[in-house]
Amino acid sequence: MNSSRPQWQEKDLSEHFCHSHLVQFYETDAMTVAHHSNYLRFFEEARVAWLRRHQLGPFHSPQADFVLAVVSSSVRYQRPAFLLDQLRIYLELRLERLKFHFRYVIFSDRFQNEAIAWGETQHIGLDGQFKVQRPPPELVQVLEREKWTETWPWSL
Amino acid sequence: MNSSRPQWQEKDLSEHFCHSHLVQFYETDAMTVAHHSNYLRFFEEARVAWLRRHQLGPFHSPQADFVLAVVSSSVRYQRPAFLLDQLRIYLELRLERLKFHFRYVIFSDRFQNEAIAWGETQHIGLDGQFKVQRPPPELVQVLEREKWTETWPWSL
Amino acid sequence: MNSSRPQWQEKDLSEHFCHSHLVQFYETDAMTVAHHSNYLRFFEEARVAWLRRHQLGPFHSPQADFVLAVVSSSVRYQRPAFLLDQLRIYLELRLERLKFHFRYVIFSDRFQNEAIAWGETQHIGLDGQFKVQRPPPELVQVLEREKWTETWPWSL
Amino acid sequence: MNSSRPQWQEKDLSEHFCHSHLVQFYETDAMTVAHHSNYLRFFEEARVAWLRRHQLGPFHSPQADFVLAVVSSSVRYQRPAFLLDQLRIYLELRLERLKFHFRYVIFSDRFQNEAIAWGETQHIGLDGQFKVQRPPPELVQVLEREKWTETWPWSL
Repeated sequence: MNSSRPQWQEKDLSEHFCHSHLVQFYETDAMTVAHHSNYLRFFEEARVAWLRRHQLGPFHSPQADFVLAVVSSSVRYQRPAFLLDQLRIYLELRLERLKFHFRYVIFSDRFQNEAIAWGETQHIGLDGQFKVQRPPPELVQVLEREKWTETWPWSL
Repeated sequence: MNSSRPQWQEKDLSEHFCHSHLVQFYETDAMTVAHHSNYLRFFEEARVAWLRRHQLGPFHSPQADFVLAVVSSSVRYQRPAFLLDQLRIYLELRLERLKFHFRYVIFSDRFQNEAIAWGETQHIGLDGQFKVQRPPPELVQVLEREKWTETWPWSL
Repeated sequence: MNSSRPQWQEKDLSEHFCHSHLVQFYETDAMTVAHHSNYLRFFEEARVAWLRRHQLGPFHSPQADFVLAVVSSSVRYQRPAFLLDQLRIYLELRLERLKFHFRYVIFSDRFQNEAIAWGETQHIGLDGQFKVQRPPPELVQVLEREKWTETWPWSL
Repeated sequence: MNSSRPQWQEKDLSEHFCHSHLVQFYETDAMTVAHHSNYLRFFEEARVAWLRRHQLGPFHSPQADFVLAVVSSSVRYQRPAFLLDQLRIYLELRLERLKFHFRYVIFSDRFQNEAIAWGETQHIGLDGQFKVQRPPPELVQVLEREKWTETWPWSL
């Protein structure tokens, strides 16, 4: 866990895919902030929004022959997210053999130019019987055009 | 992420704290398994149960002067958990300066002698105004008696 | 909505099915109490526990040919439930033609002899394609032995 | 529970407040549809959005002196909501003495001109110590301008 503050700012992410989320009351906990388990849901929202943007929505459907199952997740919580904070979740992704790597970083207006949280998830493609599947060509094609940041500062 | 299978089995954890959880219907998702965000909730349940076991319940109360805030989490999902699977969540923890390290590993009857998931969370003590606090002596005392497994096989 | 206080006490429910639930931190909200949507989850936990008690577990499985889909729900929130409150959810049920009626009432130690919440859910049996199904004979048989309280005081 | 189909259509609600919600994967359950407890969260999202629209956001903050606590809820589930269904939640509300009445009806593109669900919640104003409070004048003023449908067809 790298505790030094990343040198990047939100403006450096202007070419990354961005999904926004308003923190709801039902997402808060007794500490008055968004419960830490919800960050994995924010990441999922952004991931599904990215798939939809690229007309890849079926790959997140339970009836699909190819579903992106989560095999690992990690989150670094730097600052809290309060009720009605407007979050911006940036992501990037790449494919390594059969494994999909997603990286996320979250900003809110409350903490200027400082990421409030970041993390990663890894996925493999499964069919409806939980058997590993090769990614379909149209998904691979889209992924080959995605950028991956070699110097991504939000290491875990 | 270490993909080799851990050599330990559930019986090697007989001296670790164990919390059990029955997978509920409302925890399942459209893939018919417990949604991956719920594993952070299973870890939290086990963590709070450990605190209660040691009469340290107040440290997880929002009115307390010392609350264990989550600063990072990571989970490795190896096998799915289905509706009504009875999960056993084992944990161990230690204090490093001001940071609490918790490790977890989950077993279910469905997959014999194979952990279905494992992970870690790190915490710091905060007061009600989100200021970092030193852990109170009674908590430190309990932690000094806790074991920490140098060869814990479920690395992330 | 009947605002007069029910005359029954918890001891009057000694022959009713009871499921217990410890309020978790992840179930609290920024008002420091269990979020109101969780009561439908507490009801579901009790309902599934009742089915399991009667070896009717398969009827709550997504692979089953007969699933109890919720067609309506209602909840009356009388007193809050705080972190680590031990809740006791009592239920009763009956079948009216094709519709299952469940009633619930919740007590906690914090509010002596006063229900903190109560409610109802109604269900119909569906198959995997969301088509209405007649209840299987083994379920009807169990239901015929269930009691239904004509003077249930927790009206909505 | 009125089972006859309401005569109103979505176009009859053009003057009602509307909040939209995209069904997320983490909201689905093993029946592949949005879990029934989430409808209370959809209602809450719409309610908070209405408050924000009228610059009444503070009334849903835990630090506020006046919070709208839920005292009852009811939902009628007519049709399922699937992953990525775009929901439109219409609401109306009125104040009766100290109690706020909210009514909701949900439409999706999947089921044309047929509400998929509807319901009600009732609320009272509480301060931070859970004591009942009179609604502040600026809230009463806004409420007096709200319409209330005498012939609202989605009765429960």
